[in-house]
Amino acid sequence: MTASNDHVARTAGATVITVDNGAVTRRRDNLAGEEPLQILAAGPDQAPVEVAVTMRTPGHEADLAIGFLITEGLAAPNDIDRVTLADPATASRPDDSVVVHLRRALDVTLIAERRTVATASCGICGTASIDDIVRRCEPLPDGPTMDPAILPQLPGRLRAAQETFESTGGLHASGLFDTIGELMLLREDVGRHNALDKVIGASAVTNALPLHGTILLMSGRVSFELVQKAAAAGIPILVAVGAPTDLAVDTAAAVGMTLVGFLRGERFNVYSRPDRLGLSA
Amino acid sequence: MTASNDHVARTAGATVITVDNGAVTRRRDNLAGEEPLQILAAGPDQAPVEVAVTMRTPGHEADLAIGFLITEGLAAPNDIDRVTLADPATASRPDDSVVVHLRRALDVTLIAERRTVATASCGICGTASIDDIVRRCEPLPDGPTMDPAILPQLPGRLRAAQETFESTGGLHASGLFDTIGELMLLREDVGRHNALDKVIGASAVTNALPLHGTILLMSGRVSFELVQKAAAAGIPILVAVGAPTDLAVDTAAAVGMTLVGFLRGERFNVYSRPDRLGLSA
Repeated sequence: MTASNDHVARTAGATVITVDNGAVTRRRDNLAGEEPLQILAAGPDQAPVEVAVTMRTPGHEADLAIGFLITEGLAAPNDIDRVTLADPATASRPDDSVVVHLRRALDVTLIAERRTVATASCGICGTASIDDIVRRCEPLPDGPTMDPAILPQLPGRLRAAQETFESTGGLHASGLFDTIGELMLLREDVGRHNALDKVIGASAVTNALPLHGTILLMSGRVSFELVQKAAAAGIPILVAVGAPTDLAVDTAAAVGMTLVGFLRGERFNVYSRPDRLGLSA
Repeated sequence: MTASNDHVARTAGATVITVDNGAVTRRRDNLAGEEPLQILAAGPDQAPVEVAVTMRTPGHEADLAIGFLITEGLAAPNDIDRVTLADPATASRPDDSVVVHLRRALDVTLIAERRTVATASCGICGTASIDDIVRRCEPLPDGPTMDPAILPQLPGRLRAAQETFESTGGLHASGLFDTIGELMLLREDVGRHNALDKVIGASAVTNALPLHGTILLMSGRVSFELVQKAAAAGIPILVAVGAPTDLAVDTAAAVGMTLVGFLRGERFNVYSRPDRLGLSA
């Protein structure tokens, strides 16, 4: 748990199906790691108090915990004594739970203040495990199936609809398509999770939930949280322009969602449930 | 507060300085809007209870609030009755506070569960306003000044260091440079805020805070939260490959930080404190 100048962040290997101009190959690829980290803090005579749980890429846990306390105003640099792994006797996953020991008492009222404003950005609030999500969500249907040749057309359609209004280059888009590739609904936000919540909320208003016959296309990367939200809305096919994390892939596999990433030009990767695209696993 | 199929998200105008191959122009540009939204929920005979505060782009607040409640497991689609603005008599900013009215009682124990796992992704936890940040952070120094011709070299240096280890395409990078463009420290994470916290935590361990003589380069976009964290560490120059939000620009201006965005090739935009780059405002 010491700081170092090497910056290796943990990645995970996965077998992916790559489709490039219709040619299908199977290969090993690396995924960005994503796991929850519980950050606790304690003064000299205090029991450790949880200050945050964040989804992060494993590696440099001490740096992350110290930086979090400082940048959130919970400790000054001079307050930091050392960082240890949480007590294995009480922490269920000690590697994912660290304690920042402070030279002065932690002001727990600051944490209470933080908690009065909970946030939508939290991927694991209330549902810390994949099992919870599988239990909470209705099972996804086996279908629909769709022609994978439609996928490369979707980003252009999303951008065409988006560019009419979006002039900042700073907004994420979340677009709902039918299985022949028609754009049904588009929402934008600086936060990907918000853009997705807006699509799902708009669908609830029109009594369109669960979204069983649809494809969701998202700009950017796919985290665990986005797969969780899409599963809650019954979306069977999630397509992203960017990379998925390892936990996003594991969650998609567990709920039976088709997850496509790195959709660029005529090329894309399929990480789970390729059967909905007419591909064998 | 009704759902609609138009998807306009609010943007804000700003004057930016664009540098392209050394040629400086000033022009109006649009920024993605970013503001907190408080989401409350209430059953038929309940007083509204806060379930979340999220940083979002204004527009489609009802969609966002309904989608959030459904995807976070706090309500089923059939539970949603209607969405109203919060009572202007009690809400300080009614446009930024909505109430989702439910057909059944809200289970407040679910909210309590959420709150036991707070999150690092919250941009406004404990510090809801720019004024709070200005008050909390030490003032940034007037300097340093640097040659803006160095900026276009930085992304390549960050990528070169990153590519040695990063093979997933899914990790954000946060790199600390000195004013002649030497990379001092690099951290990666699926979350930009975590990558930045790791850099700041590592700097705390080596007693390098405040980071007054440094330039921070970040992959991706710049939100309010990242400016807040950089200011807490005393970073005077924040450079991003992507777009900043309007609130990020306003916060940078308030704390006296030089904010550069859209650094692509030989071109970049300066949004605040151009004097550190030898440019006049």
